[in-house]
Amino acid sequence: MTIHAPTARLSVPVEAFRLENGLDVVVVPDRRAPVVTHMVWYRNGSADDPAGKSGIAHFLEHLMFKGTARWPAGEFSKIVAGYGGQENAFTSFDYTAYFQRVPKEHLRAMMDYEADRMTGLSFDEAVVAPERDVVLEERRMRVDADPAAQLGEEFSSALFVHHPYGTPIIGWEHEIEGLTRADAFTYYQRFYTPENAILVVAGDTDLDETRKLAEATYGKIAARGEAPARKRPSEPDPRAERRVSLSDPRVRQPSLRRGWLTPTYLSGDRGEVFALELAAEILGGGTTSRLYRRLCAEEEIAAGASAYFMGSMVDRAAFQLSASPRPGTDMAKLEAGLDAALATFLADGPSELELARARTRLVAETVFARDSQSSLARIFGASLAVGETVEDVLAWPERIESVTREAVIEVARRYLRPDRSVTGLLLPAA
Amino acid sequence: MTIHAPTARLSVPVEAFRLENGLDVVVVPDRRAPVVTHMVWYRNGSADDPAGKSGIAHFLEHLMFKGTARWPAGEFSKIVAGYGGQENAFTSFDYTAYFQRVPKEHLRAMMDYEADRMTGLSFDEAVVAPERDVVLEERRMRVDADPAAQLGEEFSSALFVHHPYGTPIIGWEHEIEGLTRADAFTYYQRFYTPENAILVVAGDTDLDETRKLAEATYGKIAARGEAPARKRPSEPDPRAERRVSLSDPRVRQPSLRRGWLTPTYLSGDRGEVFALELAAEILGGGTTSRLYRRLCAEEEIAAGASAYFMGSMVDRAAFQLSASPRPGTDMAKLEAGLDAALATFLADGPSELELARARTRLVAETVFARDSQSSLARIFGASLAVGETVEDVLAWPERIESVTREAVIEVARRYLRPDRSVTGLLLPAA
Repeated sequence: MTIHAPTARLSVPVEAFRLENGLDVVVVPDRRAPVVTHMVWYRNGSADDPAGKSGIAHFLEHLMFKGTARWPAGEFSKIVAGYGGQENAFTSFDYTAYFQRVPKEHLRAMMDYEADRMTGLSFDEAVVAPERDVVLEERRMRVDADPAAQLGEEFSSALFVHHPYGTPIIGWEHEIEGLTRADAFTYYQRFYTPENAILVVAGDTDLDETRKLAEATYGKIAARGEAPARKRPSEPDPRAERRVSLSDPRVRQPSLRRGWLTPTYLSGDRGEVFALELAAEILGGGTTSRLYRRLCAEEEIAAGASAYFMGSMVDRAAFQLSASPRPGTDMAKLEAGLDAALATFLADGPSELELARARTRLVAETVFARDSQSSLARIFGASLAVGETVEDVLAWPERIESVTREAVIEVARRYLRPDRSVTGLLLPAA
Repeated sequence: MTIHAPTARLSVPVEAFRLENGLDVVVVPDRRAPVVTHMVWYRNGSADDPAGKSGIAHFLEHLMFKGTARWPAGEFSKIVAGYGGQENAFTSFDYTAYFQRVPKEHLRAMMDYEADRMTGLSFDEAVVAPERDVVLEERRMRVDADPAAQLGEEFSSALFVHHPYGTPIIGWEHEIEGLTRADAFTYYQRFYTPENAILVVAGDTDLDETRKLAEATYGKIAARGEAPARKRPSEPDPRAERRVSLSDPRVRQPSLRRGWLTPTYLSGDRGEVFALELAAEILGGGTTSRLYRRLCAEEEIAAGASAYFMGSMVDRAAFQLSASPRPGTDMAKLEAGLDAALATFLADGPSELELARARTRLVAETVFARDSQSSLARIFGASLAVGETVEDVLAWPERIESVTREAVIEVARRYLRPDRSVTGLLLPAA
């Protein structure tokens, strides 16, 4: 069987420029339909929450929908809905983003709105406290009601003992409770600035139109002089094997996860990170992956097995494997199976076929993403928000294609060490 | 066998007052020998290190010996040595303390000196960088060369995933490397103030003399207006059982430790904390303790077993058990034995005899400490530095004597839960 990789370099008509006030703009023309995706990315996420104020990035995302002098709370959402558009926002470790997808003729209105709430957020006291309660309720629903989410928090805390990637994006409950209007306002003043933002417009527009509209809207915002600095404690290298286990009567599907710290495109040797992307895909990408075939199909001890890795983080990334036992298989047996499968992989590495398949799948995913306007906008936004460049995004597939079998073996042995691993067990109550 | 407790209340002639600039003074006259113990305690420790600047409290302790305009580095130490005196300093999570023990006639000189370095530290650039290297070397000696210390760091990080009690007092290596003269100076300006300090003088002096000398020395320091605030993230309640294990070929004596978070005298219900002190003493205080008798003497699986608890912390305390296997006993067997011993204790509680013995031992320790001038100075300094009062120290033995068996059972069941425990394993390399 021979695998032919598709053309490696990502072929996308993308243009980037910077407004005088420091706001970065990326334009990705896509004329297939008369719609645009308009996103604003801020280069601050939960890992930039000040010590003791966890959850404030996410809280601010909520408050961003609570109105300005020009558009009181809810008004703009009605307008977007009236256009038949969609809007949303999300907070991650390294960034916070806001987006709308609307018919192309409304792009200017989206820019007016985002520019307005970049500087003019109301922060009514009457809104702040109830919204904090909304966030607390969101946390209760997502975490307190879900043992898997609780184990996820414990697992992250064990993986990152010092860096704020170990703190939940939504924040610790007791710290959310303590967030005040003053905290939110100080945070907003610090991070919601043109120098800290990236505008991504994908869709039925072009460079000239986007530039003209951006200058007329975002361009009116005064520069602050410089972008806010990210100030984060960095993670010490782990010295021990760590395990967390959570038993809860609500657990119906037990599961096992294992994680390791790795470098990122930004913080480490990029070659290693490309190789780690492939290692994750080979080990746990879909039903032809090493772990799935071995644990689910051959040994029949797992109901599922997968891997996760995202190298596009600012400081450190986590390489994660997970598996859930088949009914009747106990966790110790599943874990022994995972240990053995990993040991084989570390000893022998992937076959050339596994490597070729994984390369093809990863590159194909990017190529498929190219066909989705909003995926593409998201890839550029997320990459630029962590400090990568447009060129990094375009060259990613060819870099992935050039990873060798030896490089995969080398990074797997360097980073996926049993004595540096974190294991999480989700178990039914005894 | 009947146990008679000694008189419970601590009988010590102690006086306390505050200088106009906010400096607290505690005097403990002790005329048995013509010497004095002179200590200055600052209410800041490693847990007050700013985020990303771990180790700065300890680094500043080093820099405090690096001279002022009046006494260049080393000069004062020579003077103290010339008096036949001793001096030292230490940094803990909640405080930093400096002390000298000298013939009584030199008390004034000690005050002159400490008052001088409270405000006049030189911070020569030529001194800061080499001293940072000294601290790094200290860390290498203490931690990098010692697997038990490494496991200790991992264990603390697992116990405190968010609160800075999980960060080593000496700091993470990469953060020590980044400490600058400016960091140290900012820290010094913030914390080395009269309002943040406690002077403890024990020995051949009295209230009037100490007050006169303190006013003539420390009293000249300008007030800053208020004490610096401690700003620390607090610890979320654990939701999972956590384990860390470290294997190293240098390990000759394997060991097992287990810990739980508990309240402190300052942060929790004091009655619970007194009961936890007794629980620790009953479980692991000496060779008549429950764990020692059961694991070492009866089952012969442990070479040693002990417990540690200190409720005098600002935010949270850690209740810890530890044991090491006899040669030939594997860790799984030792751990099963510890689990079983603890389960019995949680089910049945201590006997009245165990409780009485533990009360007597704890109270006797305090009474013995009363006979040591420097121990007494240290007890008052440490207690006041975390926010307790002189009265708390004096009443401690009678509070310990009033703890009931039911209270011990209740706190043990509430806090020593298996599903909230952190286990640390130190193992020889496989």
